[in-house]
Amino acid sequence: MYETLDTPTLVIDEEKALRNIQQMAAKAQDQGVVLRPHTKTHKSPYFAQIQSAHGAEGLMVAKLGEAEVMRRAGFLDQSIGYPLIGPLKEARLRDLLLAGVRVRISVDSLDGLASLKRVFQTTGVRIGALIEVDTGMHRCGVEDPSAVLSLAQAVEEADGIDYLGITCFGGHLASTYDKDAIVGRIREEDRLLSELARRLDDAGLHASIISEGGTIPAAFLDELRTATEIRPGTYIFNDVATVASHAAIWDECALAVLTTVVSRPSRERAIIDAGSKTLGLDGPINGSYGWVVDHPEIRLTRMSEEHGIVQPVDGRSLDLAIGDRLLIIPNHVCPTVNLHDFAALARQGQLVGEVPIEARGLVQ
Amino acid sequence: MYETLDTPTLVIDEEKALRNIQQMAAKAQDQGVVLRPHTKTHKSPYFAQIQSAHGAEGLMVAKLGEAEVMRRAGFLDQSIGYPLIGPLKEARLRDLLLAGVRVRISVDSLDGLASLKRVFQTTGVRIGALIEVDTGMHRCGVEDPSAVLSLAQAVEEADGIDYLGITCFGGHLASTYDKDAIVGRIREEDRLLSELARRLDDAGLHASIISEGGTIPAAFLDELRTATEIRPGTYIFNDVATVASHAAIWDECALAVLTTVVSRPSRERAIIDAGSKTLGLDGPINGSYGWVVDHPEIRLTRMSEEHGIVQPVDGRSLDLAIGDRLLIIPNHVCPTVNLHDFAALARQGQLVGEVPIEARGLVQ
Repeated sequence: MYETLDTPTLVIDEEKALRNIQQMAAKAQDQGVVLRPHTKTHKSPYFAQIQSAHGAEGLMVAKLGEAEVMRRAGFLDQSIGYPLIGPLKEARLRDLLLAGVRVRISVDSLDGLASLKRVFQTTGVRIGALIEVDTGMHRCGVEDPSAVLSLAQAVEEADGIDYLGITCFGGHLASTYDKDAIVGRIREEDRLLSELARRLDDAGLHASIISEGGTIPAAFLDELRTATEIRPGTYIFNDVATVASHAAIWDECALAVLTTVVSRPSRERAIIDAGSKTLGLDGPINGSYGWVVDHPEIRLTRMSEEHGIVQPVDGRSLDLAIGDRLLIIPNHVCPTVNLHDFAALARQGQLVGEVPIEARGLVQ
Repeated sequence: MYETLDTPTLVIDEEKALRNIQQMAAKAQDQGVVLRPHTKTHKSPYFAQIQSAHGAEGLMVAKLGEAEVMRRAGFLDQSIGYPLIGPLKEARLRDLLLAGVRVRISVDSLDGLASLKRVFQTTGVRIGALIEVDTGMHRCGVEDPSAVLSLAQAVEEADGIDYLGITCFGGHLASTYDKDAIVGRIREEDRLLSELARRLDDAGLHASIISEGGTIPAAFLDELRTATEIRPGTYIFNDVATVASHAAIWDECALAVLTTVVSRPSRERAIIDAGSKTLGLDGPINGSYGWVVDHPEIRLTRMSEEHGIVQPVDGRSLDLAIGDRLLIIPNHVCPTVNLHDFAALARQGQLVGEVPIEARGLVQ
């Protein structure tokens, strides 16, 4: 399988990725919401371009590092989903604005707002701001609705800053794999957003953008009636988590890690050359650190940095020989992509090229 | 703190790293064992050079990718701790040998041995081989002593391959933080190796090299009397795990991640700009994904890719403001280093330069 590729390496089925891109765009269009795909999954202008050509309106980026890569590739409509804190970040935002990028940025504190005001003062370029709301993820974001209103008011009054609305990330919605429970949580998310939108309207702070992040909420979009914008990332490739969360099926998983069996130390154990340095370490799903394509009888039960330990389910036999190659779908594809400098591209099982992961590792 | 550095970023205290290098070299010399440091921790010719200048004899590398970086930097005595499987790997080993690198490689199967024989046949360059023994880590390695003997015999008889002895990795010794338990396990490890060495001697297969990997066994070297060589990696920087395992103290931790507080969404929660993409995701130790320097009252309790969630211990107050900077010692420093392209170097709290992590991400 892919004999010319050294292992371990990423292989992306370009047709599946394209189909995922088109399906999500069609869904967004059907529901009348804006699709602003998150680049954190593919970290590559190559795929951002395909998304843009198929219905995406602007890009979502994680941090300034991704924004800078996408700016150099010509993407001038960007939403940055991270608080902007500190003079070094302000200087970089200045450069982005002066290079012509229209920037929207999440704000969850007066400090974050103050940064944007300082950047406007020295550039004269207006900056869009969305209030980051905590709907249950409990990392960044304002949780108390009254506090959301006062921050929105402060943004509305800030010189050079355009108050656009609210943004949230539904990562917590995917902490179960029970479909009914997920749907119930998304309905509750929608109720929260709808109530908040009403309060903002009442206060004269109409949210023209209500933006929801994550592939799981986007997959259940018909339950999310209040959102005007979605920012899914993972949907382009999918992974074990999106399948387990009923947001995708195996055939929609467009990225896998090609590995080689390098050792058969015992009857019930095989070692592959992909460990946590290749796949990432996102916790096991159904007892496995990834889904072994075409081998439902085996699990990736443990990992070191360079070793993956493969074992059979329920004492079945392990029909793997040294030199065999396996394709493994990662549990969480975004951290996996971040570990690699490039990915091989395939169409119908044939290799057609290689794409650099240009925004890999840009943690700043 | 380090105001000119953008965050998050790695900061290495060069004096502490040098002290760690010197201490390990002195310990190896005292005990009369060879120190062959593992490059997987620093992944950088810069630090390999310092190790070589202070008592190291050759380098240990994880895979061919690290070997190639170190070869280009002029390191011509290398031990590769990974089975060599498949024609693409054989071609790369050939190139290494023809570039003048003296290579030793771990073997745990006849397939691995066959690869080495093929490489010898096309290069005429002899290759050293160590039988990889499984002393309890249960990933690669031969567990049954009789099987070790037969593989050693096959290596001994193989044309162009120099049988050198045995190698193992004591990663399993550190799965407890109880010092007495660790010492007990290392004594048991030593007993296993000593018994195996005796059986090899009896079979006329004297192991001139008995090589033990890992910083924990190296730290308790006086309990490991059978080893002729150690291959510690983490000791150069140390981390929360080596401190928890009594192999180091906090003052010997030479690498930390500099982060900024970007959000204070609630009284008991602060968000820092270092998540799993910056620190890695190695499991919590004492409820924390890293040790926050000078802040024993707080823990890094959760991580997303770009967010670290910091909380106080036992309901104490969280005295952190947006913009504050924190230094965080990683739980496991090797995967952390692998996530970064460079590290800042400091001496006595002053920045003095930057070192590229040249062998980062080389999973092949």
